[in-house]
Amino acid sequence: MLLGRVVGSLVASRKEPLMEGFKFLVLREVGVDGKESAGYVVAVDAVGAGPDEVVLYATGSSARQTVATRDRPCDAVIMAIVDTWEVDGKEIYHK
Amino acid sequence: MLLGRVVGSLVASRKEPLMEGFKFLVLREVGVDGKESAGYVVAVDAVGAGPDEVVLYATGSSARQTVATRDRPCDAVIMAIVDTWEVDGKEIYHK
Amino acid sequence: MLLGRVVGSLVASRKEPLMEGFKFLVLREVGVDGKESAGYVVAVDAVGAGPDEVVLYATGSSARQTVATRDRPCDAVIMAIVDTWEVDGKEIYHK
Amino acid sequence: MLLGRVVGSLVASRKEPLMEGFKFLVLREVGVDGKESAGYVVAVDAVGAGPDEVVLYATGSSARQTVATRDRPCDAVIMAIVDTWEVDGKEIYHK
Amino acid sequence: MLLGRVVGSLVASRKEPLMEGFKFLVLREVGVDGKESAGYVVAVDAVGAGPDEVVLYATGSSARQTVATRDRPCDAVIMAIVDTWEVDGKEIYHK
Repeated sequence: MLLGRVVGSLVASRKEPLMEGFKFLVLREVGVDGKESAGYVVAVDAVGAGPDEVVLYATGSSARQTVATRDRPCDAVIMAIVDTWEVDGKEIYHK
Repeated sequence: MLLGRVVGSLVASRKEPLMEGFKFLVLREVGVDGKESAGYVVAVDAVGAGPDEVVLYATGSSARQTVATRDRPCDAVIMAIVDTWEVDGKEIYHK
Repeated sequence: MLLGRVVGSLVASRKEPLMEGFKFLVLREVGVDGKESAGYVVAVDAVGAGPDEVVLYATGSSARQTVATRDRPCDAVIMAIVDTWEVDGKEIYHK
Repeated sequence: MLLGRVVGSLVASRKEPLMEGFKFLVLREVGVDGKESAGYVVAVDAVGAGPDEVVLYATGSSARQTVATRDRPCDAVIMAIVDTWEVDGKEIYHK
Repeated sequence: MLLGRVVGSLVASRKEPLMEGFKFLVLREVGVDGKESAGYVVAVDAVGAGPDEVVLYATGSSARQTVATRDRPCDAVIMAIVDTWEVDGKEIYHK
Protein backbone atom coordinates (compact mmCIF):
# COMPACT_ATOMS: atom_id res chain seq x y z
CA MET A 1 0.00 0.00 0.00
CA LEU A 2 1.11 3.56 -0.52
CA LEU A 3 0.45 6.77 1.39
CA GLY A 4 -1.54 9.69 0.04
CA ARG A 5 -3.05 12.93 1.30
CA VAL A 6 -6.62 13.78 0.34
CA VAL A 7 -6.20 17.04 -1.59
CA GLY A 8 -9.44 17.21 -3.52
CA SER A 9 -12.40 15.50 -5.08
CA LEU A 10 -13.68 14.73 -8.55
CA VAL A 11 -17.14 14.60 -10.10
CA ALA A 12 -18.01 12.43 -13.09
CA SER A 13 -21.70 12.22 -13.88
CA ARG A 14 -21.35 10.04 -16.97
CA LYS A 15 -19.72 6.79 -16.03
CA GLU A 16 -19.76 3.01 -16.21
CA PRO A 17 -22.97 1.95 -14.36
CA LEU A 18 -21.01 -0.23 -11.92
CA MET A 19 -19.27 2.92 -10.65
CA GLU A 20 -22.46 4.76 -9.67
CA GLY A 21 -22.54 6.09 -6.12
CA PHE A 22 -18.83 6.10 -5.46
CA LYS A 23 -16.96 9.09 -4.13
CA PHE A 24 -13.78 9.88 -6.05
CA LEU A 25 -11.02 11.56 -4.08
CA VAL A 26 -7.82 13.07 -5.43
CA LEU A 27 -4.75 11.87 -3.53
CA ARG A 28 -1.30 13.40 -3.68
CA GLU A 29 1.37 10.78 -2.99
CA VAL A 30 3.19 11.04 0.33
CA GLY A 31 6.63 9.53 0.94
CA VAL A 32 7.65 7.64 4.04
CA ASP A 33 9.46 10.82 5.11
CA GLY A 34 6.09 12.62 5.12
CA LYS A 35 6.89 14.75 2.10
CA GLU A 36 4.47 15.02 -0.79
CA SER A 37 5.57 14.25 -4.31
CA ALA A 38 4.18 15.31 -7.68
CA GLY A 39 2.47 11.95 -8.18
CA TYR A 40 -1.26 11.58 -7.70
CA VAL A 41 -4.05 9.08 -8.05
CA VAL A 42 -7.84 9.29 -8.14
CA ALA A 43 -9.17 6.71 -5.68
CA VAL A 44 -12.55 5.47 -4.56
CA ASP A 45 -13.15 6.15 -0.88
CA ALA A 46 -14.12 3.02 1.10
CA VAL A 47 -13.60 4.42 4.61
CA GLY A 48 -15.03 7.95 4.72
CA ALA A 49 -11.78 9.90 4.45
CA GLY A 50 -11.93 13.69 4.80
CA PRO A 51 -9.96 16.60 3.35
CA ASP A 52 -6.24 16.67 4.24
CA GLU A 53 -6.28 13.26 5.89
CA VAL A 54 -3.38 10.96 5.15
CA VAL A 55 -4.60 7.59 3.95
CA LEU A 56 -3.40 4.20 2.80
CA TYR A 57 -4.55 3.17 -0.64
CA ALA A 58 -4.34 -0.15 -2.46
CA THR A 59 -4.04 -0.45 -6.21
CA GLY A 60 -4.66 -3.00 -8.93
CA SER A 61 -6.90 -5.97 -8.34
CA SER A 62 -6.55 -5.49 -4.57
CA ALA A 63 -8.58 -2.30 -5.00
CA ARG A 64 -11.55 -4.53 -5.74
CA GLN A 65 -11.40 -6.43 -2.47
CA THR A 66 -13.31 -4.01 -0.31
CA VAL A 67 -17.00 -4.71 0.30
CA ALA A 68 -17.91 -1.64 -1.77
CA THR A 69 -15.66 -2.12 -4.78
CA ARG A 70 -15.89 -5.86 -5.43
CA ASP A 71 -16.15 -6.68 -9.18
CA ARG A 72 -16.11 -3.03 -10.21
CA PRO A 73 -13.74 -1.29 -12.63
CA CYS A 74 -11.85 0.40 -9.82
CA ASP A 75 -8.04 0.21 -9.61
CA ALA A 76 -7.35 2.39 -6.56
CA VAL A 77 -9.17 2.40 -3.22
CA ILE A 78 -8.63 4.15 0.08
CA MET A 79 -8.74 1.33 2.62
CA ALA A 80 -7.41 2.99 5.80
CA ILE A 81 -6.99 6.38 7.42
CA VAL A 82 -3.54 6.75 8.93
CA ASP A 83 -3.20 7.74 12.59
CA THR A 84 0.55 7.69 12.85
CA TRP A 85 3.72 6.10 11.51
CA GLU A 86 7.32 6.05 12.62
CA VAL A 87 10.60 5.40 10.84
CA ASP A 88 13.82 4.42 12.61
CA GLY A 89 12.14 5.06 15.95
CA LYS A 90 11.12 8.62 15.09
CA GLU A 91 7.51 9.61 14.66
CA ILE A 92 7.06 11.08 11.18
CA TYR A 93 3.36 11.76 11.23
CA HIS A 94 0.62 12.07 13.83
CA LYS A 95 -2.93 12.85 12.83
CA MET B 1 -7.66 5.66 -11.63
CA LEU B 2 -5.73 8.18 -13.64
CA LEU B 3 -6.78 11.17 -15.72
CA GLY B 4 -6.38 11.39 -19.48
CA ARG B 5 -7.50 13.61 -22.31
CA VAL B 6 -8.89 12.00 -25.47
CA VAL B 7 -6.43 13.17 -28.14
CA GLY B 8 -7.05 10.66 -30.90
CA SER B 9 -8.20 7.26 -32.01
CA LEU B 10 -6.64 4.09 -33.35
CA VAL B 11 -7.78 1.53 -35.91
CA ALA B 12 -6.68 -2.10 -35.87
CA SER B 13 -8.53 -4.36 -38.27
CA ARG B 14 -6.55 -7.50 -37.48
CA LYS B 15 -6.99 -8.34 -33.84
CA GLU B 16 -7.75 -10.98 -31.24
CA PRO B 17 -11.42 -12.00 -31.92
CA LEU B 18 -12.45 -11.08 -28.35
CA MET B 19 -11.53 -7.46 -29.10
CA GLU B 20 -13.86 -7.06 -32.11
CA GLY B 21 -16.18 -4.09 -31.97
CA PHE B 22 -14.28 -2.01 -29.44
CA LYS B 23 -13.33 1.59 -30.01
CA PHE B 24 -9.72 2.37 -29.17
CA LEU B 25 -8.99 5.90 -28.03
CA VAL B 26 -5.60 7.51 -27.53
CA LEU B 27 -5.30 9.24 -24.15
CA ARG B 28 -2.63 11.69 -23.14
CA GLU B 29 -2.04 11.56 -19.39
CA VAL B 30 -3.24 14.56 -17.39
CA GLY B 31 -1.85 15.48 -13.98
CA VAL B 32 -3.90 16.55 -10.99
CA ASP B 33 -2.78 20.11 -11.81
CA GLY B 34 -4.52 19.80 -15.18
CA LYS B 35 -1.28 19.74 -17.16
CA GLU B 36 -0.67 17.08 -19.77
CA SER B 37 2.43 14.94 -19.66
CA ALA B 38 4.27 12.98 -22.34
CA GLY B 39 2.75 9.68 -21.18
CA TYR B 40 -0.06 8.07 -23.09
CA VAL B 41 -2.20 4.96 -23.16
CA VAL B 42 -4.52 3.36 -25.70
CA ALA B 43 -7.78 2.55 -23.92
CA VAL B 44 -11.07 0.91 -24.79
CA ASP B 45 -13.98 3.32 -24.50
CA ALA B 46 -16.79 2.02 -22.26
CA VAL B 47 -18.69 5.29 -21.81
CA GLY B 48 -18.84 7.05 -25.19
CA ALA B 49 -16.12 9.62 -24.63
CA GLY B 50 -15.57 12.26 -27.32
CA PRO B 51 -12.56 14.20 -28.61
CA ASP B 52 -10.82 16.44 -26.05
CA GLU B 53 -12.85 15.16 -23.13
CA VAL B 54 -10.99 14.49 -19.91
CA VAL B 55 -11.69 10.99 -18.65
CA LEU B 56 -10.89 8.61 -15.85
CA TYR B 57 -9.35 5.33 -16.92
CA ALA B 58 -8.68 2.14 -15.00
CA THR B 59 -5.80 -0.21 -15.78
CA GLY B 60 -4.82 -3.82 -15.22
CA SER B 61 -7.40 -6.42 -14.31
CA SER B 62 -9.80 -3.66 -13.23
CA ALA B 63 -10.04 -2.72 -16.92
CA ARG B 64 -11.92 -5.97 -17.41
CA GLN B 65 -14.66 -5.18 -14.93
CA THR B 66 -16.91 -3.12 -17.16
CA VAL B 67 -19.87 -4.86 -18.77
CA ALA B 68 -18.22 -4.48 -22.18
CA THR B 69 -14.69 -5.63 -21.39
CA ARG B 70 -15.25 -8.58 -19.06
CA ASP B 71 -12.89 -11.50 -19.82
CA ARG B 72 -11.23 -9.71 -22.73
CA PRO B 73 -7.53 -8.96 -23.26
CA CYS B 74 -7.97 -5.31 -22.41
CA ASP B 75 -5.74 -3.60 -19.83
CA ALA B 76 -6.99 -0.01 -19.99
CA VAL B 77 -10.60 1.20 -20.06
CA ILE B 78 -12.26 4.60 -19.93
CA MET B 79 -14.85 4.22 -17.20
CA ALA B 80 -15.94 7.82 -16.54
CA ILE B 81 -16.05 11.24 -18.19
CA VAL B 82 -14.86 13.93 -15.81
CA ASP B 83 -17.08 16.96 -15.13
CA THR B 84 -14.86 18.75 -12.67
CA TRP B 85 -12.24 18.31 -9.98
CA GLU B 86 -10.75 20.54 -7.35
CA VAL B 87 -7.50 20.50 -5.41
CA ASP B 88 -6.96 22.36 -2.14
CA GLY B 89 -10.33 24.06 -2.59
CA LYS B 90 -9.51 25.42 -6.03
CA GLU B 91 -11.29 24.20 -9.14
CA ILE B 92 -8.68 22.88 -11.54
CA TYR B 93 -10.93 21.71 -14.34
CA HIS B 94 -14.52 22.25 -15.44
CA LYS B 95 -15.87 20.58 -18.53
CA MET C 1 -2.72 -1.07 -24.11
CA LEU C 2 0.58 0.24 -25.33
CA LEU C 3 2.14 0.48 -28.78
CA GLY C 4 5.20 -1.46 -29.88
CA ARG C 5 7.07 -2.22 -33.05
CA VAL C 6 8.11 -5.82 -33.77
CA VAL C 7 11.90 -5.57 -33.92
CA GLY C 8 12.92 -9.18 -33.41
CA SER C 9 12.19 -12.62 -32.07
CA LEU C 10 13.40 -14.83 -29.28
CA VAL C 11 13.94 -18.57 -28.96
CA ALA C 12 13.74 -20.45 -25.68
CA SER C 13 13.79 -24.22 -25.98
CA ARG C 14 13.73 -24.93 -22.23
CA LYS C 15 10.58 -23.48 -20.76
CA GLU C 16 7.59 -23.98 -18.54
CA PRO C 17 5.48 -26.69 -20.33
CA LEU C 18 2.43 -24.39 -20.49
CA MET C 19 4.44 -22.04 -22.73
CA GLU C 20 5.23 -24.64 -25.43
CA GLY C 21 4.33 -23.62 -28.97
CA PHE C 22 4.21 -19.88 -28.45
CA LYS C 23 6.09 -17.42 -30.59
CA PHE C 24 7.99 -14.79 -28.63
CA LEU C 25 8.45 -11.44 -30.32
CA VAL C 26 10.65 -8.57 -29.17
CA LEU C 27 8.81 -5.25 -29.15
CA ARG C 28 10.36 -1.82 -28.89
CA GLU C 29 7.96 0.63 -27.24
CA VAL C 30 6.43 3.27 -29.48
CA GLY C 31 5.05 6.59 -28.20
CA VAL C 32 1.83 8.18 -29.29
CA ASP C 33 3.98 10.54 -31.40
CA GLY C 34 5.24 7.51 -33.34
CA LYS C 35 8.76 7.70 -31.90
CA GLU C 36 10.43 4.64 -30.45
CA SER C 37 11.82 4.68 -26.94
CA ALA C 38 14.49 2.57 -25.26
CA GLY C 39 11.90 0.42 -23.49
CA TYR C 40 11.11 -3.06 -24.71
CA VAL C 41 9.05 -6.10 -23.85
CA VAL C 42 9.03 -9.73 -24.96
CA ALA C 43 5.45 -10.64 -25.88
CA VAL C 44 3.58 -13.71 -27.02
CA ASP C 45 2.06 -13.23 -30.47
CA ALA C 46 -1.69 -13.97 -30.59
CA VAL C 47 -2.45 -12.39 -33.97
CA GLY C 48 0.35 -13.34 -36.41
CA ALA C 49 2.30 -10.10 -36.35
CA GLY C 50 5.24 -9.72 -38.74
CA PRO C 51 8.57 -7.90 -38.61
CA ASP C 52 8.35 -4.10 -38.31
CA GLU C 53 4.60 -4.06 -37.77
CA VAL C 54 3.30 -1.74 -35.11
CA VAL C 55 1.09 -3.59 -32.65
CA LEU C 56 -1.01 -3.12 -29.56
CA TYR C 57 -0.02 -5.23 -26.60
CA ALA C 58 -1.74 -5.89 -23.31
CA THR C 59 0.12 -6.64 -20.10
CA GLY C 60 -0.51 -8.25 -16.73
CA SER C 61 -3.45 -10.56 -16.19
CA SER C 62 -5.12 -9.15 -19.31
CA ALA C 63 -2.36 -10.86 -21.30
CA ARG C 64 -3.97 -14.15 -20.31
CA GLN C 65 -7.36 -13.33 -21.80
CA THR C 66 -6.69 -14.33 -25.40
CA VAL C 67 -7.83 -17.77 -26.49
CA ALA C 68 -4.21 -18.85 -26.83
CA THR C 69 -2.78 -17.58 -23.56
CA ARG C 70 -5.54 -18.36 -21.05
CA ASP C 71 -4.15 -19.68 -17.74
CA ARG C 72 -0.55 -19.53 -18.92
CA PRO C 73 2.39 -17.72 -17.29
CA CYS C 74 2.35 -14.99 -19.90
CA ASP C 75 2.31 -11.31 -18.90
CA ALA C 76 2.47 -9.60 -22.31
CA VAL C 77 0.50 -10.44 -25.44
CA ILE C 78 0.15 -8.85 -28.86
CA MET C 79 -3.60 -8.60 -29.35
CA ALA C 80 -3.92 -6.30 -32.38
CA ILE C 81 -1.98 -5.09 -35.41
CA VAL C 82 -2.31 -1.35 -35.82
CA ASP C 83 -3.50 0.06 -39.16
CA THR C 84 -3.45 3.72 -38.28
CA TRP C 85 -3.83 6.22 -35.46
CA GLU C 86 -4.29 9.95 -35.29
CA VAL C 87 -3.63 12.55 -32.62
CA ASP C 88 -5.23 16.00 -32.57
CA GLY C 89 -6.65 15.34 -36.04
CA LYS C 90 -3.29 14.53 -37.59
CA GLU C 91 -2.45 11.05 -38.79
CA ILE C 92 0.67 9.88 -36.99
CA TYR C 93 1.00 6.41 -38.45
CA HIS C 94 -0.38 4.51 -41.43
CA LYS C 95 0.63 0.93 -42.06
CA MET D 1 9.65 -10.24 -5.29
CA LEU D 2 11.61 -7.25 -4.11
CA LEU D 3 13.81 -6.65 -1.09
CA GLY D 4 13.00 -4.23 1.69
CA ARG D 5 14.26 -3.35 5.15
CA VAL D 6 11.75 -2.94 7.98
CA VAL D 7 12.27 0.68 9.02
CA GLY D 8 9.06 1.41 10.87
CA SER D 9 5.42 0.71 11.48
CA LEU D 10 2.11 2.38 10.85
CA VAL D 11 -1.13 2.58 12.81
CA ALA D 12 -4.53 3.06 11.18
CA SER D 13 -7.50 2.62 13.51
CA ARG D 14 -10.17 3.47 10.94
CA LYS D 15 -9.98 1.03 8.09
CA GLU D 16 -11.81 -1.32 5.78
CA PRO D 17 -13.19 -4.09 8.08
CA LEU D 18 -11.38 -6.81 6.10
CA MET D 19 -8.06 -5.24 7.13
CA GLU D 20 -8.67 -5.48 10.89
CA GLY D 21 -5.93 -7.15 12.88
CA PHE D 22 -3.12 -6.74 10.39
CA LYS D 23 0.24 -5.27 11.26
CA PHE D 24 1.43 -2.63 8.80
CA LEU D 25 5.19 -2.29 8.43
CA VAL D 26 7.06 0.43 6.57
CA LEU D 27 9.70 -1.00 4.22
CA ARG D 28 12.50 0.92 2.58
CA GLU D 29 13.46 -0.67 -0.73
CA VAL D 30 16.81 -2.44 -0.84
CA GLY D 31 18.75 -3.05 -4.05
CA VAL D 32 20.48 -6.27 -4.97
CA ASP D 33 23.71 -4.53 -4.01
CA GLY D 34 22.38 -4.15 -0.47
CA LYS D 35 21.96 -0.39 -0.73
CA GLU D 36 18.72 1.29 0.27
CA SER D 37 16.89 3.56 -2.12
CA ALA D 38 14.37 6.34 -1.55
CA GLY D 39 11.45 4.08 -2.48
CA TYR D 40 9.19 2.63 0.16
CA VAL D 41 6.07 0.57 0.59
CA VAL D 42 3.68 -0.14 3.43
CA ALA D 43 3.21 -3.90 3.64
CA VAL D 44 1.18 -6.32 5.72
CA ASP D 45 3.39 -8.64 7.75
CA ALA D 46 2.61 -12.35 7.19
CA VAL D 47 5.75 -13.80 8.78
CA GLY D 48 6.48 -11.88 12.00
CA ALA D 49 9.26 -9.66 10.73
CA GLY D 50 11.09 -7.46 13.22
CA PRO D 51 12.74 -4.02 13.09
CA ASP D 52 15.71 -3.72 10.69
CA GLU D 53 15.20 -7.17 9.20
CA VAL D 54 15.57 -7.48 5.44
CA VAL D 55 12.53 -9.14 3.92
CA LEU D 56 11.07 -10.26 0.61
CA TYR D 57 7.72 -8.76 -0.25
CA ALA D 58 5.25 -9.59 -3.00
CA THR D 59 2.96 -7.03 -4.60
CA GLY D 60 -0.27 -6.92 -6.56
CA SER D 61 -2.66 -9.84 -6.52
CA SER D 62 0.13 -12.11 -5.30
CA ALA D 63 -0.01 -10.19 -2.02
CA ARG D 64 -3.38 -11.82 -1.42
CA GLN D 65 -2.10 -15.39 -1.65
CA THR D 66 -0.88 -15.79 1.91
CA VAL D 67 -3.20 -17.54 4.35
CA ALA D 68 -3.68 -14.27 6.21
CA THR D 69 -4.35 -11.89 3.33
CA ARG D 70 -6.56 -13.96 1.03
CA ASP D 71 -9.43 -11.88 -0.48
CA ARG D 72 -8.42 -8.72 1.38
CA PRO D 73 -7.65 -5.29 -0.07
CA CYS D 74 -3.91 -5.74 0.47
CA ASP D 75 -1.43 -5.11 -2.34
CA ALA D 76 1.89 -5.70 -0.55
CA VAL D 77 2.81 -8.50 1.83
CA ILE D 78 6.00 -9.58 3.55
CA MET D 79 6.25 -13.29 2.73
CA ALA D 80 9.83 -14.16 3.77
CA ILE D 81 12.63 -12.96 6.04
CA VAL D 82 15.95 -12.99 4.21
CA ASP D 83 18.89 -14.88 5.73
CA THR D 84 21.44 -14.22 3.04
CA TRP D 85 21.93 -13.55 -0.65
CA GLU D 86 24.89 -13.54 -2.95
CA VAL D 87 25.60 -11.92 -6.29
CA ASP D 88 28.34 -13.07 -8.67
CA GLY D 89 29.64 -15.43 -6.01
CA LYS D 90 30.02 -12.72 -3.37
CA GLU D 91 27.86 -12.60 -0.27
CA ILE D 92 26.07 -9.26 -0.21
CA TYR D 93 24.04 -9.71 2.95
CA HIS D 94 24.05 -12.01 5.95
CA LYS D 95 21.49 -11.61 8.70
CA MET E 1 7.95 -10.88 -20.20
CA LEU E 2 11.28 -9.30 -19.43
CA LEU E 3 14.85 -10.54 -19.73
CA GLY E 4 17.15 -11.13 -16.79
CA ARG E 5 20.51 -12.73 -16.08
CA VAL E 6 20.82 -15.07 -13.11
CA VAL E 7 23.43 -13.32 -10.96
CA GLY E 8 22.86 -14.92 -7.59
CA SER E 9 20.59 -16.70 -5.17
CA LEU E 10 18.82 -15.92 -1.95
CA VAL E 11 18.06 -17.95 1.16
CA ALA E 12 15.08 -17.27 3.41
CA SER E 13 14.43 -19.92 6.04
CA ARG E 14 11.50 -18.15 7.70
CA LYS E 15 8.74 -17.67 5.18
CA GLU E 16 5.09 -18.01 4.36
CA PRO E 17 4.38 -21.81 4.42
CA LEU E 18 3.09 -21.75 0.81
CA MET E 19 6.56 -20.67 -0.32
CA GLU E 20 8.42 -23.68 1.17
CA GLY E 21 10.67 -25.56 -1.23
CA PHE E 22 11.11 -22.83 -3.82
CA LYS E 23 14.48 -21.69 -5.07
CA PHE E 24 14.87 -17.90 -5.14
CA LEU E 25 17.22 -16.54 -7.77
CA VAL E 26 18.46 -12.97 -8.09
CA LEU E 27 18.05 -11.59 -11.62
CA ARG E 28 19.68 -8.49 -13.01
CA GLU E 29 17.52 -6.95 -15.73
CA VAL E 30 18.81 -7.24 -19.28
CA GLY E 31 17.80 -4.88 -22.09
CA VAL E 32 16.87 -5.92 -25.59
CA ASP E 33 20.34 -4.68 -26.59
CA GLY E 34 21.86 -7.30 -24.26
CA LYS E 35 23.11 -4.74 -21.75
CA GLU E 36 22.40 -5.14 -18.06
CA SER E 37 20.74 -2.36 -16.12
CA ALA E 38 20.71 -1.54 -12.42
CA GLY E 39 17.26 -3.06 -11.95
CA TYR E 40 16.81 -6.44 -10.33
CA VAL E 41 14.15 -8.83 -9.17
CA VAL E 42 14.08 -11.91 -6.95
CA ALA E 43 12.23 -14.64 -8.84
CA VAL E 44 11.13 -18.20 -8.16
CA ASP E 45 12.79 -20.66 -10.55
CA ALA E 46 10.29 -22.87 -12.41
CA VAL E 47 12.64 -24.21 -15.08
CA GLY E 48 15.97 -25.09 -13.44
CA ALA E 49 17.96 -22.04 -14.50
CA GLY E 50 21.68 -21.95 -13.70
CA PRO E 51 24.18 -19.20 -12.88
CA ASP E 52 24.73 -16.60 -15.61
CA GLU E 53 21.93 -17.91 -17.81
CA VAL E 54 19.68 -15.33 -19.44
CA VAL E 55 16.05 -16.05 -18.72
CA LEU E 56 12.55 -14.79 -19.38
CA TYR E 57 10.53 -13.96 -16.32
CA ALA E 58 6.86 -13.14 -15.88
CA THR E 59 5.52 -10.86 -13.18
CA GLY E 60 2.28 -10.14 -11.39
CA SER E 61 -0.53 -12.67 -11.38
CA SER E 62 1.01 -14.37 -14.42
CA ALA E 63 3.81 -15.48 -12.10
CA ARG E 64 1.29 -17.77 -10.44
CA GLN E 65 0.37 -19.65 -13.62
CA THR E 66 3.21 -22.18 -13.62
CA VAL E 67 2.47 -25.62 -12.22
CA ALA E 68 4.78 -24.92 -9.29
CA THR E 69 3.62 -21.46 -8.28
CA ARG E 70 -0.17 -21.69 -8.63
CA ASP E 71 -2.02 -19.94 -5.77
CA ARG E 72 1.20 -18.95 -4.01
CA PRO E 73 2.32 -15.45 -2.94
CA CYS E 74 4.85 -15.27 -5.76
CA ASP E 75 4.97 -12.25 -8.09
CA ALA E 76 7.96 -13.12 -10.30
CA VAL E 77 8.78 -16.46 -11.91
CA ILE E 78 11.43 -17.65 -14.35
CA MET E 79 9.42 -19.43 -17.04
CA ALA E 80 11.98 -19.90 -19.85
CA ILE E 81 15.73 -20.07 -20.45
CA VAL E 82 16.70 -18.00 -23.46
CA ASP E 83 18.71 -19.61 -26.27
CA THR E 84 18.96 -16.65 -28.57
CA TRP E 85 17.28 -13.46 -29.68
CA GLU E 86 17.73 -11.09 -32.57
CA VAL E 87 16.82 -7.46 -33.17
CA ASP E 88 16.59 -5.86 -36.60
CA GLY E 89 18.04 -9.01 -38.15
CA LYS E 90 21.13 -9.01 -35.94
CA GLU E 91 21.73 -11.69 -33.33
CA ILE E 92 22.12 -9.98 -29.98
CA TYR E 93 22.58 -13.01 -27.76
CA HIS E 94 23.42 -16.68 -28.22
CA LYS E 95 23.67 -18.96 -25.24
